Amino acid sequence: MTLPPEFSLIARHFLPLAGAGALALSDDAALLTPPPGRELVLAADAMVAGVHFLEDDPPETIGRKLLRVNLSDLAAMGADPLAYLMTIALPHGTADAWVAAFAAGMALDQAEYGLAVLGGDTVSTPGPLTLSLTILGVVAPGAALRRNGARPGDELWVTGRIGDGVLGLAAARGQLADPDGCFATRYRLPTPRLAEGRALRGIATACMDVSDGLVQDLGHLCRASGCGAVLRAADVPLGAADADVAMLITGGDDYELLFACRPGTAPPGMAATRIGHFTEGAPTVTVIDAAGQPMSLPRQGWSHL
Amino acid sequence: MTLPPEFSLIARHFLPLAGAGALALSDDAALLTPPPGRELVLAADAMVAGVHFLEDDPPETIGRKLLRVNLSDLAAMGADPLAYLMTIALPHGTADAWVAAFAAGMALDQAEYGLAVLGGDTVSTPGPLTLSLTILGVVAPGAALRRNGARPGDELWVTGRIGDGVLGLAAARGQLADPDGCFATRYRLPTPRLAEGRALRGIATACMDVSDGLVQDLGHLCRASGCGAVLRAADVPLGAADADVAMLITGGDDYELLFACRPGTAPPGMAATRIGHFTEGAPTVTVIDAAGQPMSLPRQGWSHL
Repeated sequence: MTLPPEFSLIARHFLPLAGAGALALSDDAALLTPPPGRELVLAADAMVAGVHFLEDDPPETIGRKLLRVNLSDLAAMGADPLAYLMTIALPHGTADAWVAAFAAGMALDQAEYGLAVLGGDTVSTPGPLTLSLTILGVVAPGAALRRNGARPGDELWVTGRIGDGVLGLAAARGQLADPDGCFATRYRLPTPRLAEGRALRGIATACMDVSDGLVQDLGHLCRASGCGAVLRAADVPLGAADADVAMLITGGDDYELLFACRPGTAPPGMAATRIGHFTEGAPTVTVIDAAGQPMSLPRQGWSHL
Repeated sequence: MTLPPEFSLIARHFLPLAGAGALALSDDAALLTPPPGRELVLAADAMVAGVHFLEDDPPETIGRKLLRVNLSDLAAMGADPLAYLMTIALPHGTADAWVAAFAAGMALDQAEYGLAVLGGDTVSTPGPLTLSLTILGVVAPGAALRRNGARPGDELWVTGRIGDGVLGLAAARGQLADPDGCFATRYRLPTPRLAEGRALRGIATACMDVSDGLVQDLGHLCRASGCGAVLRAADVPLGAADADVAMLITGGDDYELLFACRPGTAPPGMAATRIGHFTEGAPTVTVIDAAGQPMSLPRQGWSHL
């Protein structure tokens, strides 16, 4: 009795990715003994071809991007990766070689980030390739970074550079010169700031990752913390000096950490920049330019709907 | 500052579904303290409109079907439900009332099965509605039912009735008379056999749920256990006496439990029927008719690819 196509595909391409507890992907569910004395940290994100990645992106990077987006959520909580589950809706007629390359990419990132797949589902779709990933991480009880701890007077920091995501999308579309492919790679393979998240445990009073645009995401941090914020646009580290600042601070796909620290506390051992501070009052974001004047922005960030 | 559409939709429709640890769906991830001394049981399934459910199915039943399909995976492992995460790719222009009805359906099943949502993601798609759900359950260490424990001589059992899924699909499509709507409901809202799964802990030597057709799924049980099986088609409990037996035992969407017990052991306190036995030798399934003659089947079951 030969295996139906679905199970043959899983055995060939996904079984090599299965971790302990995945039961060789041949039971109805996986088993996981949670590390004792730890809280679990869980997040789930979905991506659709043509919306969250380009339809002609290399198959090796597509699954890795989704994994890294989820790892970025763990980083924002100060958590360590543990395992993941993934579902894939494959367009009819997807070539076996495509799936092989997709799985090979996942294997690279599993090794890079020290986790493995526990389970999932592969189905077919008449629509675009659609992926969903649930990630599990762990953190010491009470040590998770949250969005709700910023207080008026706290300083606002961000890791890395802002705007590489939106520039990278333009580069990947061939709309921006990108001779070394650096920007396109930032779009296709963002770097989850896991080490920075760990280093911020007990230091940051609030933290999140920047996925939908710096200004919009800062608004979320303000709402969760119940205070306002002033963002100094001229201090935001940008990857392109000649680009439109408003576009870069409202674009998506940066996956840097945006966090609050008590005044005078510098985040230890990481590339991070102080870009503003939190204020009393309504949870609104005031963006000011180099002259200290409020800037008017055409939009705050990216909405998925 | 008004919320972008995505976050407004989540706040209105999904926040009321959020459980403890979901952090009001306003952090990057959820926190969960695993119940001490328990193993976690994890599964993920995806569903695509027009493939796994009908595009015009009532919105109240669509999410519940996916939740129940995942609960059925927990039932097959003998696990108790704990929580879930869900991602939803909504077609452009989905009406707010549709989302409200979808969420109202989820609320019913959360109450019915005693679990709540921990997190997820809502995105838009140019394609069909696509849902993915990851479920978490718990079981005492070592108590999970597996697929690999059936031995030659063990008897083969199934809960409930087989074929209601494929008959229900025909009824939902208007191709089968269904005056009381019973079959269509079985297709749209399968019943996860959680109580039966619990009762089979320590009793069944192997167990799985029937999702892709009885014959094909029995093949999985045989491969995992390393033995063959004889299935007596005439003994399989069917919902329609006049329907094609071959169609019913190879159709999908039944979500009954298929399990093995030592000879002479009857599963306690449940509606279950003995339909065959396991044999020495290659992991093949022999389907025999009432006269004991091998039946030839046009297919084994449903493949998702």
